[in-house]
Amino acid sequence: MSGLKTLVLEASDIATLVDKVGIHRLMDDVIGATVTAIRDYDPSVAQVPPRSGVHYLKPEWGLIEAMPAHFGRSGTTVKLVGYHPANPVSYNVPSVVASLAVFDSVTGHLVGFLDGTFLTALRTGAASAVASKFLAAPDSRTIGIIGCGAQAVTQLHALARCFEIDRVIAYDRDPGVSASLPARIGFLGLEVEVVDSDQVTGLLERSDVLCTCTSSAPGDGPIFEDFSNRSHLHINAIGSDFRGKIELPFALLKRSVVCPDFHAQAIAEGDCQQLEEAMIGPDLKAVIQDESAHAQLRDELTVFDSTGWALEDHVSALIVLDYARELGLGRDLNFECLPPDPKNPYSFLTL
Amino acid sequence: MSGLKTLVLEASDIATLVDKVGIHRLMDDVIGATVTAIRDYDPSVAQVPPRSGVHYLKPEWGLIEAMPAHFGRSGTTVKLVGYHPANPVSYNVPSVVASLAVFDSVTGHLVGFLDGTFLTALRTGAASAVASKFLAAPDSRTIGIIGCGAQAVTQLHALARCFEIDRVIAYDRDPGVSASLPARIGFLGLEVEVVDSDQVTGLLERSDVLCTCTSSAPGDGPIFEDFSNRSHLHINAIGSDFRGKIELPFALLKRSVVCPDFHAQAIAEGDCQQLEEAMIGPDLKAVIQDESAHAQLRDELTVFDSTGWALEDHVSALIVLDYARELGLGRDLNFECLPPDPKNPYSFLTL
Repeated sequence: MSGLKTLVLEASDIATLVDKVGIHRLMDDVIGATVTAIRDYDPSVAQVPPRSGVHYLKPEWGLIEAMPAHFGRSGTTVKLVGYHPANPVSYNVPSVVASLAVFDSVTGHLVGFLDGTFLTALRTGAASAVASKFLAAPDSRTIGIIGCGAQAVTQLHALARCFEIDRVIAYDRDPGVSASLPARIGFLGLEVEVVDSDQVTGLLERSDVLCTCTSSAPGDGPIFEDFSNRSHLHINAIGSDFRGKIELPFALLKRSVVCPDFHAQAIAEGDCQQLEEAMIGPDLKAVIQDESAHAQLRDELTVFDSTGWALEDHVSALIVLDYARELGLGRDLNFECLPPDPKNPYSFLTL
Repeated sequence: MSGLKTLVLEASDIATLVDKVGIHRLMDDVIGATVTAIRDYDPSVAQVPPRSGVHYLKPEWGLIEAMPAHFGRSGTTVKLVGYHPANPVSYNVPSVVASLAVFDSVTGHLVGFLDGTFLTALRTGAASAVASKFLAAPDSRTIGIIGCGAQAVTQLHALARCFEIDRVIAYDRDPGVSASLPARIGFLGLEVEVVDSDQVTGLLERSDVLCTCTSSAPGDGPIFEDFSNRSHLHINAIGSDFRGKIELPFALLKRSVVCPDFHAQAIAEGDCQQLEEAMIGPDLKAVIQDESAHAQLRDELTVFDSTGWALEDHVSALIVLDYARELGLGRDLNFECLPPDPKNPYSFLTL
């Protein structure tokens, strides 16, 4: 048996890790490492194909997809992610459940395996903060949020790490969900104003940064009507991640600079589904890699079309595995059946 | 925290499991369950998309792919498989290293996670045995094998469970590899005749069933010249599983009935790459689901083009997880960070 070990983390290991590292430092690390990874992204080394998998209507409507991302010597991460929208109501389980497998790209050895549910939430927030750092006015103080479910928590957490937020204006079509948001983000100490459907126009007019994180079904969007022009609004469109599912009105997209996280995926699943190629702006990588050329976008109407990029998962997984090793968390398992004789797959057995 | 557990098996758990169950019974179970799964395969429920992933030349030539397979209520299995051909020589690790993630398809919960290296070897042997049961003469007694590496072990094991084998004739272009085969399959008690390159024609003429399991690089094939017609030879072409990589001569394929394991994948990666659509025969599913219509194939020249079908991985993973539960092997981990409040991804933490 080779001495190759696989570090497996349990939920309690991740909870302990966050307790020791601190949720703010972890978010800051993910935001910082995401910017670095995007700035250093080299298409001659990195490979991030669009996700693929199985989509089904029975036994419940759902999908399980694999999101692979290869970054040369820093390894290959595959996120396995399930989306089962009936989960919260029928099974008291989040709609998104995920796991992360990190491979050594020299041998394909599995070096780490950990939950990706928490990190998907965290990195989705971090991605919006990264986009907002490059696309929103630096003095943005009012954050509007439409859709106050699980994603709202990490959106606000990440933005609060990068902006001096005075006020959050929150709307959800389910008043019970918006009403519970202040308690869920209590650890951030932000002023939260919960509004009803009559006040959505005001929310749109008063926000410096807007996050849309809804779970409306394909065909239901857009989630609001177009509204009067704004000079420097930045929108993070988070919730659109399904064929046929959109959040923003076409007229608004048309007069915005729309930056997808990952072009090929955004045109298949994001709000970019609504746009012709020529109407889609630079992707996040282009913006970050040539920051000065895109600095004026901070004064314009911009949309970050976030569909979830495996680069973000890779970065987050490496950070957590590093902390786990440093703190001695998790179990080093002899997971793989690596035979002492590579020409005999049974040689790890006693036959 | 929800009570959903993930059963994680280590290599030692799988070794103990094989010790208790017996390698022959396990192989018989996988062969039997594969036939049943193929016979019951219902395309209105099952979904097995072709594998996809990342392929790279640095830091070593390799790939990591995801192979998802959804079978309705019986769940969804994703195999994550790496192929790094430098492994055996440079790192003393098998070229194929894999892991298997089994999901509940109601919620997307990860029910089990286990090594797939050993099971990939086992199920690849089982698939050839299944194909041979339906495509080879039932009284086949002489097995030819070209390519005597790791795959040869499970090919011969599986065939020995289904046929009364008198003799194995084995050739490898590396004489050291063929010379070590008899010891590696000693547990089967078969008569093995190792031949050199001069005797390959004889091997081809004397075999009732031939297995080709070579790892020649894309562009190198075919691995032998076409040979005189045979009345009832069945060939399992195992080694071709890469774009541009082929094993069998075109002329031979042309006068054979070529049955792919999985049509869409075989035309991309298998020996079917050489064929036009009209020259490809029924897939294994068609043969098994209408056995009587295809019974005459056992007297003909047939080729099973095996590229590896995720159905086989799903079937094997379920068998092993069932035995592990029965025998109390492995660890039931609280792996997923499932928050008590699905609307708050941080609610499993103490903030």
